[in-house]
Amino acid sequence: MVYIVEDFSITPWEAKGKIDYNKLIEQFGTKAFDETLKNELASLAGEMHIFFRRNIVFSHRDFELILKDIKSGQGFFLYTGRAPGGPMHIGHILPFYLTKWLQEKFKVNVYIMIADEERYLQRDDLTYEDATKKWAYDNILDIIAVGFDENRTFIFQDTEYISKLYPKALRIAKKINFSLAKAVFGFENSTNIGIIFYPAIQMAPTFFEKRRCLIPAGIDQDPYWRIQRDIAEGMGYYKTAALHLKLIPALTGIWEKMSTSKPETCIFLKDDEKTVSSKIMKHAYSGGQATIELHRKLGGNPEVDVSFQWLYYFFEEDDAKIKKIEEDYRSGKMLSGELKQILVEKINKFLTVFREKRENAKELVNVFKYEGKLAKQMWEME
Amino acid sequence: MVYIVEDFSITPWEAKGKIDYNKLIEQFGTKAFDETLKNELASLAGEMHIFFRRNIVFSHRDFELILKDIKSGQGFFLYTGRAPGGPMHIGHILPFYLTKWLQEKFKVNVYIMIADEERYLQRDDLTYEDATKKWAYDNILDIIAVGFDENRTFIFQDTEYISKLYPKALRIAKKINFSLAKAVFGFENSTNIGIIFYPAIQMAPTFFEKRRCLIPAGIDQDPYWRIQRDIAEGMGYYKTAALHLKLIPALTGIWEKMSTSKPETCIFLKDDEKTVSSKIMKHAYSGGQATIELHRKLGGNPEVDVSFQWLYYFFEEDDAKIKKIEEDYRSGKMLSGELKQILVEKINKFLTVFREKRENAKELVNVFKYEGKLAKQMWEME
Repeated sequence: MVYIVEDFSITPWEAKGKIDYNKLIEQFGTKAFDETLKNELASLAGEMHIFFRRNIVFSHRDFELILKDIKSGQGFFLYTGRAPGGPMHIGHILPFYLTKWLQEKFKVNVYIMIADEERYLQRDDLTYEDATKKWAYDNILDIIAVGFDENRTFIFQDTEYISKLYPKALRIAKKINFSLAKAVFGFENSTNIGIIFYPAIQMAPTFFEKRRCLIPAGIDQDPYWRIQRDIAEGMGYYKTAALHLKLIPALTGIWEKMSTSKPETCIFLKDDEKTVSSKIMKHAYSGGQATIELHRKLGGNPEVDVSFQWLYYFFEEDDAKIKKIEEDYRSGKMLSGELKQILVEKINKFLTVFREKRENAKELVNVFKYEGKLAKQMWEME
Repeated sequence: MVYIVEDFSITPWEAKGKIDYNKLIEQFGTKAFDETLKNELASLAGEMHIFFRRNIVFSHRDFELILKDIKSGQGFFLYTGRAPGGPMHIGHILPFYLTKWLQEKFKVNVYIMIADEERYLQRDDLTYEDATKKWAYDNILDIIAVGFDENRTFIFQDTEYISKLYPKALRIAKKINFSLAKAVFGFENSTNIGIIFYPAIQMAPTFFEKRRCLIPAGIDQDPYWRIQRDIAEGMGYYKTAALHLKLIPALTGIWEKMSTSKPETCIFLKDDEKTVSSKIMKHAYSGGQATIELHRKLGGNPEVDVSFQWLYYFFEEDDAKIKKIEEDYRSGKMLSGELKQILVEKINKFLTVFREKRENAKELVNVFKYEGKLAKQMWEME
């Protein structure tokens, strides 16, 4: 079963010109994720993740080679991560569901870096203990709750796994001089020397296997992989491939970014039902009209309505249903409050299940970090 | 028994103005190692190492506080190291004898960093394996041969011990921005990002104990410790103390530096008796006259004669004997060839014993790195 909804492609960010994804593709020198790729992936996977159906994956590097590696039987591996400095929100966790889907479909290894030192080095107000103990542990529970394969997934904290990362990072670091790093990452004189070295650590896992690495991430992470792609083959490895995801907008407006430090912009994975409801009702930017009368007459605008966008991005998986919601909202048949209510229910349903999985995750931490089949192998790696 | 030879202080580098040690003290903002310190150290140690008697230790930071810590019973610890990229020569090993002497006298811990990654990152022609395996092992044998206390000494390779170094290095790195690092270490745009981070690694062991760290080293290493001294107290540790040693000159001339890549400038610890003899006879810069007749008449100049300087620096420990040699050479009674012959014999005697100790060291590598009392503690360190 393959779901690709060709005639249904709402791209509000492009429409509004605030984030022009075609421009990003041009600017970063990547390729658009086109219908040919989608169809081929769909036929290999047997179905399609919502992120492909809804064009959330908008760009890529070398994904056609990943498809080739799948077909040839060589396979590939997935690499993603999280820098722990606070609680995770919806925007942080959703990309992990794409990673999990790819793992399920192709039975591949997933490496998840908990870049505790990165966040510690970046944030003046964050203690070493909070980054490497408190938030690392907290975020790992969230990630495990997504439901990765415990024998094909390795979750590692940089400060714990550094003995294996450092040798690879050194080989990488030797090939990156300050000019290059400065140009690519925008380092300044005030940047600390830990941050300057860190890109070498972040690149190290792309050399965990002598297969192609696939990284699902925001396109803003692309600079890391551009350098990796410049040096990988000279080091006897593959250039890393990537899938680039559109940003899920802030509750407060489609041109804003969710931010942990502004709770009204996001739903945290730990928000309770009342908080979810009150945040969405109060803060979710609405595409509706000023009065019910006007709304019935003129209809709402789903392109700027954040509740609709969140449903579209992830929370209403059913293509027929989301299409109906869009039509009803646009026509004025559905009111903003009703639309918000749908999102509240969807998110609370999602979080109820998530909370339970998160609770169960506590017993799986050691499996994903140390005892699972892949984890064990990685700790024994030379 | 205390040997301090007040009236005997040949300081050829100062005399010649090529290396003005007083100027270095001024430039680096350190303090001269004066008679008061010498006398106090002598009375605490019960005797004096040749480096103090001969003013090879010419400068220091906070050594008066080290003496205070000895007297109060708080104690201190020693930290030194080596970046392995080739065979060690006489100039590399002699400072370790001072460290060993201090350990013996005050029963303190010694931490020896094998900065394998530093050398690897610095040298384009050095492979990762050569730095971290071949030369690291080779140099460790040389260091063990010096005779450190196996339960009070920890030898660690950065690439192996990084799991313990990294957390400390991160805390340090967060306090050093690129401007500061650039100003202090002279980094350029072409410097790789590994080298830029490395100072944080090199500083980490100064925080191994909540006691004062003493580092015997060339004054050229002082920049590392100046930064350490700026940040240590804010991190709850002591500012590191240091002893600065004069350079032992190259065989080929007192204003040159021994260099591994120019074998004629140095005696390697693995040079055999014939090589030692031939290098000294051929290459040791002589302070003698052009002919025997002239030499008998005018006498030699020990200030520029490298053979004399080497005897003075380390190889003729007996103060009365070195004084006699100096007088005989200066008067013309002793010829250059005779002076060289004394050095050949002294070095070959030293190396014969050293070779045997080096052979025995092979069985001690695991003790110093992993199994000795201090090593074990350090691997268990949180």
